[in-house]
Amino acid sequence: MNNPIIIAVDAMGGDDSPKKVIEGISLHSKSSSNINYKIFGNETLLSPLIEKYKLSNEIYSITHTDKIVEGEDTALSAAKRGKDTSLWLSIESLKNSEAHAVISAGNTGALFLISKLNLKMIENIDKPALSALWPSKKGMNIVLDLGANIECSSKNLIDFSIMGSALHKALFNNEIPKVALLNIGSEEIKGNAIIKDTYKILNEKQHPSFEFKGYIEGNNIMEGDVNVIVADGFTGNIALKTAEGTSNFIISELKKALSSSVIGKLSSLINYKNLRNFKDKLDPRLYNGAILLGLDKPVIKSHGSTDSIGFSNSLKVCEKIIKGNLIDQIKNNIK
Amino acid sequence: MNNPIIIAVDAMGGDDSPKKVIEGISLHSKSSSNINYKIFGNETLLSPLIEKYKLSNEIYSITHTDKIVEGEDTALSAAKRGKDTSLWLSIESLKNSEAHAVISAGNTGALFLISKLNLKMIENIDKPALSALWPSKKGMNIVLDLGANIECSSKNLIDFSIMGSALHKALFNNEIPKVALLNIGSEEIKGNAIIKDTYKILNEKQHPSFEFKGYIEGNNIMEGDVNVIVADGFTGNIALKTAEGTSNFIISELKKALSSSVIGKLSSLINYKNLRNFKDKLDPRLYNGAILLGLDKPVIKSHGSTDSIGFSNSLKVCEKIIKGNLIDQIKNNIK
Repeated sequence: MNNPIIIAVDAMGGDDSPKKVIEGISLHSKSSSNINYKIFGNETLLSPLIEKYKLSNEIYSITHTDKIVEGEDTALSAAKRGKDTSLWLSIESLKNSEAHAVISAGNTGALFLISKLNLKMIENIDKPALSALWPSKKGMNIVLDLGANIECSSKNLIDFSIMGSALHKALFNNEIPKVALLNIGSEEIKGNAIIKDTYKILNEKQHPSFEFKGYIEGNNIMEGDVNVIVADGFTGNIALKTAEGTSNFIISELKKALSSSVIGKLSSLINYKNLRNFKDKLDPRLYNGAILLGLDKPVIKSHGSTDSIGFSNSLKVCEKIIKGNLIDQIKNNIK
Repeated sequence: MNNPIIIAVDAMGGDDSPKKVIEGISLHSKSSSNINYKIFGNETLLSPLIEKYKLSNEIYSITHTDKIVEGEDTALSAAKRGKDTSLWLSIESLKNSEAHAVISAGNTGALFLISKLNLKMIENIDKPALSALWPSKKGMNIVLDLGANIECSSKNLIDFSIMGSALHKALFNNEIPKVALLNIGSEEIKGNAIIKDTYKILNEKQHPSFEFKGYIEGNNIMEGDVNVIVADGFTGNIALKTAEGTSNFIISELKKALSSSVIGKLSSLINYKNLRNFKDKLDPRLYNGAILLGLDKPVIKSHGSTDSIGFSNSLKVCEKIIKGNLIDQIKNNIK
């Protein structure tokens, strides 16, 4: 048997942790094999949950600490809590090659800062980027940066294109990914100097690891015609959050409409299966798991407000990234 | 009787014009009174439509021209077509105070440039901004700038706050509008230097014409807790287009889900009225009509791909803006 994949898990971050974390591990372990979960957190809280969700002894270990990073901590105050928080310890185990990836549903800023303090950047990458999966009509896109870097140079955006392509390959293992720069389409003056400069560089000489498709506008992100959408962290975050808000708005209006009369309620019942298919396809838990790219080991952020199903899906992302050799793919592409 | 409101209408711009324009005028005239439509375009095409849609002689006049700005024109090539295109003539009639507002469903860049060439800026406003209505859980927001200015100073963003508030008052005539700056919420470093600077200025001394509510993230635009959302044109355009794409994606997935089985189809029929209510609330034609703010006369852009109902709604926006004394409101607020 191959050596197991080891995932370092900060069990204490995010809403309803460690319950959702342990339940998520239980769910993930049922659909995967040969995974070992290195769990960091408060043993007193963890033990009854491990019993409840029937984790087999062989698939996990616990490193006890009762120190945790709080959701309200700034990145700096989280780091100052010391090297024995569940977050720090889980990242340190990755640094020490005792795990292949780390995952936390906790404080994003703290995860970034403590990862950067402990892990090395991949050579020739200047800034790490936060990337995530985004559903489209044809499957899943990668969008980055989603907020790690407010201001980016052309070099950064080109690095993001390379890293995003490597991530797409690692996750979906298909043909050469198509990459586009998120931009606005109004009038002849499209975008700012940095975007135009990046376009020029990518357009002049095609990069071997992806196919550059030019600009994409926000309304086409979900068409599925490109696989990797690149933006600076400010723009990417605005797009991500606006999509989230729009989706919530529409779903809540739809619920109101369907429950606004007796006939509506009755026919919704008949229609339940179809509506559930619809909801399932849009379920944000399906594409839960943001990936911090640029560090020489994989760091995965699960959404703080997700549940055990969402956490289990981000463990799936960890697994795919490790099996797909993400870091090696990035290193090869960046050369 | 009061003097009529006069709207200068470029009848030749956008898809399916002039048909949708004349039909839109017909629809609008049925729900409004004392409006006069000053129509610019090709009389040979317009006359049969005016007959078909039974426009009364008293409510319109036609200024004939067979020269038009094409959708593919750049702003510059549109301006170079000369002063006798339907777009130029309609804007010129506004300039000459022969109308109270101008509307076109044609080329956005051309509308902006030719408006700027003909009309004056309001004193102390440096840059015009494109604003539009955005549906929320509690009604309608104003969002600006949506693409007129890629880079903006703090002064510009403050001007946009003032102009957006005036527009909200002119359209909805309610209490003091609440204004927020569109920003990202990740980590302690929120936004770029310009946004932070704008925040500081607006927060230190409240402006009399609006209540400053700080930052807003993209996922809260549609909550309806603020009335005016301010961004530079790049960010605003990204948000607008991403919301549009997300909405299209969800509606298309919903349609697929509801038509994927016989039971689904049947129950959708029963549910038709409720789903139609839902669709109606989200109908982009309802909030059609972007307003170019900063010029000393009102310039309204109807979406190029809208239909007669959408065009009629943007005529309604024209009417409200004129009745609400938008330009005077802006001038008063800017002092």
